Amino acid sequence: MHSIKYFQELFNERLAIEKFDKQPIELYKPISYTFSLGGKRLRPVLALLACDLFEGIIENAINPAIGIELFHNFTLLHDDIMDNAPIRRGKETVYKKWNQNIAILSGDTMFVLAYEYLMQTDSKYSNKVFWVMSKTAREVCEGQQYDMNFEKQSKVSISEYLNMIRLKTAVLLAASLKIGAIIGNANEQDADYLYNFGINIGMLFQIKDDLLDAFGDEEKFGKKSGGDIISNKKTYLFLKAMELASDDDLNKLKHFFANTDFDENEKINSVTEIYKKLKIDELAKIEMENYFLKAIENLNSISVKDENKKVLSSFAEKLMRRQR
Amino acid sequence: MHSIKYFQELFNERLAIEKFDKQPIELYKPISYTFSLGGKRLRPVLALLACDLFEGIIENAINPAIGIELFHNFTLLHDDIMDNAPIRRGKETVYKKWNQNIAILSGDTMFVLAYEYLMQTDSKYSNKVFWVMSKTAREVCEGQQYDMNFEKQSKVSISEYLNMIRLKTAVLLAASLKIGAIIGNANEQDADYLYNFGINIGMLFQIKDDLLDAFGDEEKFGKKSGGDIISNKKTYLFLKAMELASDDDLNKLKHFFANTDFDENEKINSVTEIYKKLKIDELAKIEMENYFLKAIENLNSISVKDENKKVLSSFAEKLMRRQR
Repeated sequence: MHSIKYFQELFNERLAIEKFDKQPIELYKPISYTFSLGGKRLRPVLALLACDLFEGIIENAINPAIGIELFHNFTLLHDDIMDNAPIRRGKETVYKKWNQNIAILSGDTMFVLAYEYLMQTDSKYSNKVFWVMSKTAREVCEGQQYDMNFEKQSKVSISEYLNMIRLKTAVLLAASLKIGAIIGNANEQDADYLYNFGINIGMLFQIKDDLLDAFGDEEKFGKKSGGDIISNKKTYLFLKAMELASDDDLNKLKHFFANTDFDENEKINSVTEIYKKLKIDELAKIEMENYFLKAIENLNSISVKDENKKVLSSFAEKLMRRQR
Repeated sequence: MHSIKYFQELFNERLAIEKFDKQPIELYKPISYTFSLGGKRLRPVLALLACDLFEGIIENAINPAIGIELFHNFTLLHDDIMDNAPIRRGKETVYKKWNQNIAILSGDTMFVLAYEYLMQTDSKYSNKVFWVMSKTAREVCEGQQYDMNFEKQSKVSISEYLNMIRLKTAVLLAASLKIGAIIGNANEQDADYLYNFGINIGMLFQIKDDLLDAFGDEEKFGKKSGGDIISNKKTYLFLKAMELASDDDLNKLKHFFANTDFDENEKINSVTEIYKKLKIDELAKIEMENYFLKAIENLNSISVKDENKKVLSSFAEKLMRRQR
């Protein structure tokens, strides 16, 4: 079994060989630009790890892994327009650097390329890969739509929130693993166990993100804490607090999240204080722990030798413990 | 062989059975809305006609035909944002009726659905269909990008223009035919002949569009003539005129197309007068005639009985003669 680092390097090496810059350059330049911004390559690495788990032929999974990363980056191009996000990974987003039309159309092109790379594998697997990807792509769109709806929705339940992050974040991690498993020639049941493992680590990944944003060590996290609070984002922490708060705290939370004209630090401090008083951070950690335990259970159910599973179980642990 | 009308009705009947309205409704409602606006269903009908040409099983081509129409409508959703087009088929476009974010994301979802419907055919054909569609989808994006580039580009050659309309318009008609041919079990050579037939009728279709916009009978055409002239669009007519005009007319054309603050009728009359003086309409008709002859040659090369080809050859003639 190879390490995460090994697959990260392999993936980046292979990605670097691909030539995306074609004519018209306005359409293709944003693709190489987006890749040049780097990133953890989480999803393609999961696909390669999954293929390796079943001792599959890694070469068969390289192009699909590139397809998955293309798909992920396509969603970022369009999401950044919808979310008015000017900066990503410390650089200008595509719609900001070029313009909105280029971000729409270049995104569309990345989506086509994503499918093309995904289908470039042994023909035994390509049809299955296609259907996993398409279902996932629809779900990711649904997740983004729910996320946008929640901004305007006065009441969002925890279960609605969990469903949203499952669609917006977890299913693509899960699909990456499942695609790797399919190409690794896993049987259907094992591929599904691994898919569920992916859902569960995806859920804990997002809840951890919410936690880090509110309580993370700013230096380690690499960005200022409290961004979600400032932007009135309905995170797990906020929704759980709304569920549990006394009338007094409820009014405070409503007040802080209905307006934007506060001193930023005052708002962050007041809100995180309520979170702490209600032990929301503890509750979030328990929720994460539950997802972690389910993920490990899924992994244990897979019919390969335990030794092969170590990379993925330690990966899940790392997601739990990560400080950034 | 069945008629165009037969396939139009069959397609609309089958489309009406499909249920697109799922949750979240913001994402899926624009899909049924777009279909409710109607349209000639040109592309899916071409796919069904092509399948019929080779006496294939029409049932196998229905879902892919729906996929093609979904793809076409996806491009309209995104193009209408990019082109700031508030009205299509007499109704509000999606970004105007809802908002831009919904048009982006619902368009993305239509794109996924397009692929899913395209792949729902006999597994003998689905892989080939996939690759035809993906190449075409990339080309359509390229065509739209060139079209946007031309707006800002001071000089556009006729050959650049022809390449743009080939990508933006013709390849999707050609791909629709080729996909129908593949599902009709045509051999590769015949499928390619039919693809080329589609390219040639696509080219004549777009040049006819340019002609109708400038010289069409407003009542028959169903919209006001001269829209392209008012919006300074670099059509075949304009670019040909720029090629052939005397210095005096060249300056006039440049003047009219560099500004927008003219009396609309005065601008239309002055420009169409130059077009007529230079016999641009005649030249455009000759160009169309050439594409028509090439299309018929392509059709003649196909190894099915002549009787089967009549619907498509009369279809090409209709495109030549159409008044709207």
